[in-house]
Amino acid sequence: MRYGIAFRITGVASRRLGWIAAAQGLDLKGQGASRAEGVVNFEAASAAVGGDVRTWLAAAQADVLFEATSLNVESGQPAIDYIRAALEHGAHAITANKGPIVHAYRELRDLGAARGKQFLYETTVMDGVPVFSLFDQLPAIHLQGFHGILNSTTNVILGEMEQGLSLDEAVKKAQALGIAETDPGHDIDGWDAAVKTAALITVLMDVPIRLDQIEREGIRDLTANAVRNARRDGWPFKLVCRARRTASGVEASVRPEKVRTGEPMARISGTSSYIYFETDIFSGLAITEENPGLYATAYGMLADFVTVART
Amino acid sequence: MRYGIAFRITGVASRRLGWIAAAQGLDLKGQGASRAEGVVNFEAASAAVGGDVRTWLAAAQADVLFEATSLNVESGQPAIDYIRAALEHGAHAITANKGPIVHAYRELRDLGAARGKQFLYETTVMDGVPVFSLFDQLPAIHLQGFHGILNSTTNVILGEMEQGLSLDEAVKKAQALGIAETDPGHDIDGWDAAVKTAALITVLMDVPIRLDQIEREGIRDLTANAVRNARRDGWPFKLVCRARRTASGVEASVRPEKVRTGEPMARISGTSSYIYFETDIFSGLAITEENPGLYATAYGMLADFVTVART
Repeated sequence: MRYGIAFRITGVASRRLGWIAAAQGLDLKGQGASRAEGVVNFEAASAAVGGDVRTWLAAAQADVLFEATSLNVESGQPAIDYIRAALEHGAHAITANKGPIVHAYRELRDLGAARGKQFLYETTVMDGVPVFSLFDQLPAIHLQGFHGILNSTTNVILGEMEQGLSLDEAVKKAQALGIAETDPGHDIDGWDAAVKTAALITVLMDVPIRLDQIEREGIRDLTANAVRNARRDGWPFKLVCRARRTASGVEASVRPEKVRTGEPMARISGTSSYIYFETDIFSGLAITEENPGLYATAYGMLADFVTVART
Repeated sequence: MRYGIAFRITGVASRRLGWIAAAQGLDLKGQGASRAEGVVNFEAASAAVGGDVRTWLAAAQADVLFEATSLNVESGQPAIDYIRAALEHGAHAITANKGPIVHAYRELRDLGAARGKQFLYETTVMDGVPVFSLFDQLPAIHLQGFHGILNSTTNVILGEMEQGLSLDEAVKKAQALGIAETDPGHDIDGWDAAVKTAALITVLMDVPIRLDQIEREGIRDLTANAVRNARRDGWPFKLVCRARRTASGVEASVRPEKVRTGEPMARISGTSSYIYFETDIFSGLAITEENPGLYATAYGMLADFVTVART
């Protein structure tokens, strides 16, 4: 108990399990063995709760919500509703979902502040690397722009294409490795990278931006030949995210770019990622996340939980 | 007033000015113009205070001490005494001096905790880049080791030697640029890099280490020819800091190493710096500070001040 944090899990909601809650604590091992100590098993608990998030939060007496639904690029829903319900219920909300930041950042931030609860999302960009917290530690700094490689699926796919696979073969290999999702479109067409770019602009540059304001081009039109030749010629293709302040706001793009071999981005291989921030204090502040472990995303949510528990 | 922080400067102590304090606030413009508003000029204030840090802190009614004396490699003094006095007086202590971390980290940390005051030192390594705060945001992570380039003076000198200057000429040029100090020995002999390495080990790996436990070799014995040839052959010399956990503690070194051109360290030129952390969650988490501005060190102290004022 290095951090002196005690917790119990009082609710779980998933497509497979339904909405389960028990304020005295759930038996996650599913054995019901410790029922005598006030821990109930799933069946006993699930009977008590309907399919409504507010009823579920109340039944669970939740202090913290971990929100990990999948990304809805168009609306950020239902994650926004879940997070709003948690903050209104009086729980901190921790999300691994970028949608709510792009579609409802200011509302959720202000709602949390008004209720004295935190809305945290560290794991949404670069997994557990504390990119957002870093800027909390950089008061009054002015972020003029950034560029980087934030989508690891396309980075893995481009690497496989450099080795001779076609796009389709590379996608299948990435799926087999558990990196690409069943529908790889979000990654290949640059949506995931664009949403991350928008999240960084929204939070760190404090400029709200819509996804349709980000120039977006995925890797679907790159042929295996083009990718191989680019690497051979010392200018490998990377799916690069860029943002830069302008007189009227922020200009941003996600697209395949040929990167000089000497550039740090050219070295970012596999599931590694990279971001380079331009600020008034440091002309460049760059962070590289090399080969994150399997638990890096979950670790980011854990770090947010420790932040919440500390305050 | 974005951070809602109001402050006044109630004391200044320097070799040139002596010990000056005035609880109602000092007139830093030296004009005495705002004396009517309760602000006094230096001469009026300095008469009241002797040369003792405790008397001075009391006269200034200090809430925060900014400690920026120069590094004493052997003992960390008098900075340690000043910081101890501040914490005992009931002031937060912010230092730009690495000595107290290497020679008295645990004592000062525990004293601060006991008095409910903060002991902060963010600017001591990589200027204002929040290296220490970053790890506050990475709970329960296990730091297995690190390597990097942390002394910019030797990095500038090696770059000049690659361009054809001798060590002496390169030192003179770095002095003319305001980068090297009048006595460049601390940098050239690797002391500054060793102290930074020790500070990171002490705080982030939580292993106390003495300077004599760090294998240290500076750049004094490198000839201009060796430096030029190494760059030409694609293996440029860099003064590299390394630390790695072992069964019994930490093994650490500072020494010139030939770095492969493809390695990120090879690209760190001029006053830029670099650190690569090996952790259990991220096999590599690397930070590059490129061309920090003139105010980066002062900025690090300002960031610590905002941290203090927020809590």
